[in-house]
Amino acid sequence: MDEPTIPERAHPRGRGARQTRLDIYVDRYATRTQRMKASEIRALFAVASRPEVVSLAGGMPNISGLPLDAVAETLGELVVDRGTQAMQYSSGQGDPGLREQICTVMALEGVAAHPDDVVVTVGSQQGLDLITRVFCDPGDVVLCEAPSYVGALGVFGSYECEVVHVAMDDQGLQPEALRHTIDIVRAAGKRVKFLYTIPNFHNPAAVTLSAQRRTQVLDICADADVLVVEDNPYGLLGFDTEPMRAIRADGPERVVYLGSFSKTFAPGFRVGWVVAPHAVRDKLVRAQETATLCPPTFSQLAVSAYLANHDWRGQIKSFASMYREHRDAMLAALDEHFPTTASWTRPAGGFYVWVTLPSGLDAGAMLSRAVTARVAYVPGTAFYADGNGTTAMRLSYCYPTPERIREGVRRLAGVMGTELELREMFGATGPGLPSRGYSSPNTDLT
Amino acid sequence: MDEPTIPERAHPRGRGARQTRLDIYVDRYATRTQRMKASEIRALFAVASRPEVVSLAGGMPNISGLPLDAVAETLGELVVDRGTQAMQYSSGQGDPGLREQICTVMALEGVAAHPDDVVVTVGSQQGLDLITRVFCDPGDVVLCEAPSYVGALGVFGSYECEVVHVAMDDQGLQPEALRHTIDIVRAAGKRVKFLYTIPNFHNPAAVTLSAQRRTQVLDICADADVLVVEDNPYGLLGFDTEPMRAIRADGPERVVYLGSFSKTFAPGFRVGWVVAPHAVRDKLVRAQETATLCPPTFSQLAVSAYLANHDWRGQIKSFASMYREHRDAMLAALDEHFPTTASWTRPAGGFYVWVTLPSGLDAGAMLSRAVTARVAYVPGTAFYADGNGTTAMRLSYCYPTPERIREGVRRLAGVMGTELELREMFGATGPGLPSRGYSSPNTDLT
Repeated sequence: MDEPTIPERAHPRGRGARQTRLDIYVDRYATRTQRMKASEIRALFAVASRPEVVSLAGGMPNISGLPLDAVAETLGELVVDRGTQAMQYSSGQGDPGLREQICTVMALEGVAAHPDDVVVTVGSQQGLDLITRVFCDPGDVVLCEAPSYVGALGVFGSYECEVVHVAMDDQGLQPEALRHTIDIVRAAGKRVKFLYTIPNFHNPAAVTLSAQRRTQVLDICADADVLVVEDNPYGLLGFDTEPMRAIRADGPERVVYLGSFSKTFAPGFRVGWVVAPHAVRDKLVRAQETATLCPPTFSQLAVSAYLANHDWRGQIKSFASMYREHRDAMLAALDEHFPTTASWTRPAGGFYVWVTLPSGLDAGAMLSRAVTARVAYVPGTAFYADGNGTTAMRLSYCYPTPERIREGVRRLAGVMGTELELREMFGATGPGLPSRGYSSPNTDLT
Repeated sequence: MDEPTIPERAHPRGRGARQTRLDIYVDRYATRTQRMKASEIRALFAVASRPEVVSLAGGMPNISGLPLDAVAETLGELVVDRGTQAMQYSSGQGDPGLREQICTVMALEGVAAHPDDVVVTVGSQQGLDLITRVFCDPGDVVLCEAPSYVGALGVFGSYECEVVHVAMDDQGLQPEALRHTIDIVRAAGKRVKFLYTIPNFHNPAAVTLSAQRRTQVLDICADADVLVVEDNPYGLLGFDTEPMRAIRADGPERVVYLGSFSKTFAPGFRVGWVVAPHAVRDKLVRAQETATLCPPTFSQLAVSAYLANHDWRGQIKSFASMYREHRDAMLAALDEHFPTTASWTRPAGGFYVWVTLPSGLDAGAMLSRAVTARVAYVPGTAFYADGNGTTAMRLSYCYPTPERIREGVRRLAGVMGTELELREMFGATGPGLPSRGYSSPNTDLT
C-alpha cells in the first residue's frame, strides 16, 4: 500500500481538549451505555504499558514458544489449498471440522459433546456475550464467584444484569453459600438466570473447585433449576496433575460450557467456543449470526490446520511447563519479599496469584504509587461488582520472564513497605478506586 | 491432529426428533430471544444449497480472482516476521496501522477521517451490532429505507428497536418522506435514535442515493437532530463511474460510517470498521472490548499486509469488472425471459437486482416452487420489518457464473409463467411467508 494520506485535523485535539469536549450525543445513548463507568485503571495502565514498568497486571499468554516457521507453512498451505473457502463467509455455527476437533480437545476433560452441540465464538469473551444476550433481561440476577473474571462482570453489566457474588475458599465456590444465595435472591423476588463459574485455576482467585464440590454445585443447581455457565480457559494448563473432569461432563443438559484456544494456542485468532444443550445452542447460533454473520472463517481454519498438523498436546505441555517456572519465580519472590502479614494463593495452574494485603492497605489507592515505582497489578475491586476487594490484588505471572517477575515483586514489596510505614505514621491511606456501574474489560485484564 | 473421537449420541436425534424436542429453557430466555422468529426461509435455503440449485439468493462475493499464491506468501511472511504480535491480543479499537490504511481507503470516497476515529469490527455486521448496543433501548425507533438490509433489521430487532421504514425511489431514499416520517414518529411520542441508510448500490433495492439527495438527507437530519448511520460496503464496486462522495464526508459530527473489506478483498477475515464522532467512538471501543476483548489480531494484520503488498485498487477494479459482466448477464436474461408485467432495477454497481413481480404474484409463496425448479432467491418480505415486500424479490448476481445466472433466470421465468397461468385459472396463490418478530440473518442473506 502506498503511504496513507492522513488528513490534518481541522481542529487539532490534544488529550486535554478531548476530555473536556462536549459530547453532543450524551443524552441519546442506551441505558446500558450510560451505566458504563470511566475506568481509572485504564488510564493508569496506559502508563503501565511503558517498557520500564514490570506489568504483573496483564493476562496476555506468553506465546514466544510457538513454532512460527511451522505455523507459517501451515497457514501458507491453507491459503494455497483452500484459500477461497478460508477467505469466504461460512456457517454461523462455525466450521464443522473445527467443531469435531474441539470435541477431541474437550474429551481430555471428560466432556462427551457432539460437534453439533458446539458454537464457535470470537474468543470465549464473545461466548459470554452471546449467552448473556440469549438469557438476560435487565434486572436478571447472575451468580458469580467472589471474586470473578472482570471481563464477565463487564458483559453482565452491559446487559444490565445484577451480579450477586457467592463466597469462595481455597477449594473454590462454597456449595452452602451457593444454596443460601439462591434462596436469598429468590426470596427477594428476583430471577436467577445462571451461575457463572471458573472451576479451574480461577481468574483471579487462582483456586480450583474440588471434585467433590463439582458434584455438589451441580446437584444444588439441579435442585434449584439453575443453569450453570462453566468457563474453562485454563483447564489444560495444570502444573502437576492431569486435567480435572469438567462440570459439563456430568451435566450436559444443565451446563453451558465455554472453551478457548487463547491460552492453549494463541489469542490473536480469537477462536473460542460454547457447548450448550440443543435448544440453547440454536439460540446461540442465531445470536452469532446477528452479531457477526459468522465467526472469522480464516481464524477457524487456521486453528483447525494447526491442530491437524502440529503436536498441540505437546505444545500445551510446553506452555504449562513454562508457566510453572513463572509461578515458581513469583511464589519464591513473594515468600522472600512480601510481609508476612500479606497472604496469597499458591496456584496449581493458570496465570494468576491472588494476594490479600496486610490489614489497612488499599490496593486501589496504592496502584498509582506502584506504577510510579515501575510495577503494575490489578486491584481487587476490578473483580467484584459490589465494591469489595479493596484489600486484594491480582498478580499475573503469565507474560513476563522469571527475572522480570522477581524484579516486579521486589518493587511491589518496596511500595507496600513504604505504605505500611506511612500508615504507621499517619493512619489510613486514601480511598481506593471508586466502583460504580460497570467497566469494559481490556486485554490488560483478561 | 489425530482422528477426532466423536462420541456416539446416547439418544440419536434425527431432524424430526429435534424439531419436537422439548426446550427446558423455554421460559427463561431474554425477551429479545423470545421475539426471534423461526425462519421458514432458512429451511428452504438448506435445500437451496444443493449444487443443482442455482442460487440467486446468496450475497457471497465471488473471490475466485484473488491471487492465492501471493496472499499465501504475504501471510507466511506475517507469521514469520510478526507472528507473536499477529497471534496475540491487541487493542480493542483495532490495529493502528490498519486504521491508517482504512483512512486511505475511505479517502477514495471523500472521507477525511483520522485513524483515531476508526474502530475495527468483526465485519461491518458487528459494527451495526455495536452501534445499536451503544444507542438503543427497547422501543427506540430506527429509521430504515424500504426495503433495507436484512442483517441490519435482524440487529435492530435483537435490541428490541422499532423499525420504521422510509420510502425510496430510483434515486434512493426520498427526502420528503424522511422529514415526514421523523415528524410522525415524534408526534407519536417516540424517540428516533438514528437513520440507517445504504447510499450506494443498495442492498436489496439496487439504487444509489443521488448527490443532491445526500445533501438534503444530511440537512434534514441536522435540522431534526437525527444521527445518520451510513453503511457502505459496495461504494467502490461501481461499474461505470468514479465512487461517489460519502455522506460522512460532509457531516463528520452527524454521521457514523460503516465500512468493510468483505466485498473489496475477502469476507472470511471478518474485518469491517466504524468511523464515528469522538465521543461515540469511545463508547464503541468499550462495547467492542466487552463483546470480544479485541477484534481478531491476525485478521487485521492479514488485511493490513494485503493492502501493503498488493495492488488492492487494481483488485477492486477487477472485481467490479467481473460483477459488471454478471450484472449484464442477469439484465439480459431478465429482458429475454421475464414477463413485461414484472419490473426490475438496473444496478450501476453492487450485487443485486430488485424485482417487482406481476400483480397478484407472491414471492414468498412462490419460493418453494422455485426451489423445486432448482432456482432460489430471497423474497422481498425479508427486507421489511412491517410485512411489506410480498410482491418483490431480491436476485443476486455476485457469486454464480454468467452461465448459471442465465440458467437461473430462465428457470425462474418458467416458475413465474406457471404461477401466472395458475393464477389466471384459479385466482390468487397461497399466502406468503409470515412475517412477525425478527429473524437472524445468515450468509445466504448478506
